[in-house]
Amino acid sequence: MKVIVIGATGTIGRAVSEQLAARHEVIRVGRSGGQHQVDIADPASVEALFRRIGPADAVVVTAGNLHFGPLAELDADKMNVGLQHKLMGQVNVALAAQRHLNDGGSITLTSGIVGAEPIRYGINATTVNTAVDGFVRAAAIELPRGLRINVVDPSVLQESMKAYGPYFHGFEPVPASRVAQAYSRSVDGLQTGKVYRVW
Amino acid sequence: MKVIVIGATGTIGRAVSEQLAARHEVIRVGRSGGQHQVDIADPASVEALFRRIGPADAVVVTAGNLHFGPLAELDADKMNVGLQHKLMGQVNVALAAQRHLNDGGSITLTSGIVGAEPIRYGINATTVNTAVDGFVRAAAIELPRGLRINVVDPSVLQESMKAYGPYFHGFEPVPASRVAQAYSRSVDGLQTGKVYRVW
Repeated sequence: MKVIVIGATGTIGRAVSEQLAARHEVIRVGRSGGQHQVDIADPASVEALFRRIGPADAVVVTAGNLHFGPLAELDADKMNVGLQHKLMGQVNVALAAQRHLNDGGSITLTSGIVGAEPIRYGINATTVNTAVDGFVRAAAIELPRGLRINVVDPSVLQESMKAYGPYFHGFEPVPASRVAQAYSRSVDGLQTGKVYRVW
Repeated sequence: MKVIVIGATGTIGRAVSEQLAARHEVIRVGRSGGQHQVDIADPASVEALFRRIGPADAVVVTAGNLHFGPLAELDADKMNVGLQHKLMGQVNVALAAQRHLNDGGSITLTSGIVGAEPIRYGINATTVNTAVDGFVRAAAIELPRGLRINVVDPSVLQESMKAYGPYFHGFEPVPASRVAQAYSRSVDGLQTGKVYRVW
C-alpha cells in the first residue's frame, strides 16, 4: 500500500512511518520537514498535497496543535488554536481523503488520553480530543467506496515525559513504538469508526 | 436563586424556564426575543449580557446552531457553523460565567444524543456535541469558588419529530418537559462535570 503519514517528523509520526515502511510505501509529510509539506489548518494546502502525491491507499495524521493554559485565562482565540488546528486540520485531511484515496482506503487520525482524562490546563485538549473521536465515529457511517476512518487515542508518550511529566502524574506513559502499533492495526485492519485506545 | 436561561424562546428553553420559574427568579434571554438579547457566538455580546443582568446564581444555555448535510459536501466553513456557534457559543457563556456568577453558582450547557449516536448528515452535530461534553468534564475540575458545570444530553424532542423525524427512525423521542427535569437536577443539585443523558 501507499501510505501518507502527515506529521511524520514528530515523535509518533516517526515511529508510525518506521513501522509501516517495513511493508508499505510511506510518504512522509511534515509542516516544514519530510518529503512533502502541508499546513493541515489550510484546506487548500491539504488539497494541493493530495494532488501532488496522487492516488494513495491510506493517510495517517499524527499532527495537531493545542492550547494549554488555565481556565481563568481561556478565551475564544485560545480555544480556536486546537479547534482550527488539531481538530479542523485532521478534518480537512479526512474531507480531502474521501475524494483522493483509492477505493477501500483508510484514514487514521489522532486524539489523546486527555479527552477521557482531563488534566490541569487541558481544557482545549479534552474538548478537541473528544471532538476528533466524535468526528471519526460520525464520518465512518457516511464514507463512500469502502473507505474507512479510525482514530488512535494514545496516553502520554514515554518520550514526552521530560517535557510534560509534571502534568501527567499517575498516568502510565507508553513508548511511541507501542502507540505506532495501533496505527498499524487501523491501516492494515478492516475496522471503521473505531477509537484505538493505547492506555 | 436568580437563573439566566439563554435560548429561553426555544422548545427546550421554554420548558426549562417554566419549570425553574416555579421556585427561582428566571431571566429569559434569546437571540431576538426574551427579556435580554445575546449573540452567544460573540464573546463581547456575552460579556455585555452578564454585566447588564448583574450577579446571578446559575446560567443555562439551550441554544446553538449546527450544520446538517452530507459528508461529501462538508467543508471547513460548514464544520465551523457548529464549532463557532453551538460549541464556542456555550464555551463563551461558561468562560464569562466563571467571572460573573455568585460563589457556588452553576453553569448548565446542552449537547445531544447525536454525539453518542451518529445519524445521516449529522457529522457536525456528533463532533460538536461530543466536544461540549468534553469541555464540561474538563472545565469542571478547574472552576473556582465552588462553581459547577454540567451538560444535558437530550434525545430528539417529541416536539421536533414533525420536522426531524425522518432522521431519527428508531430513536425514542422525549418531551421537552422531561428534558427540562435534567436541567433542574443540574441547577438545584450539587454535581459537577456530569453529563445528564435524557434517553
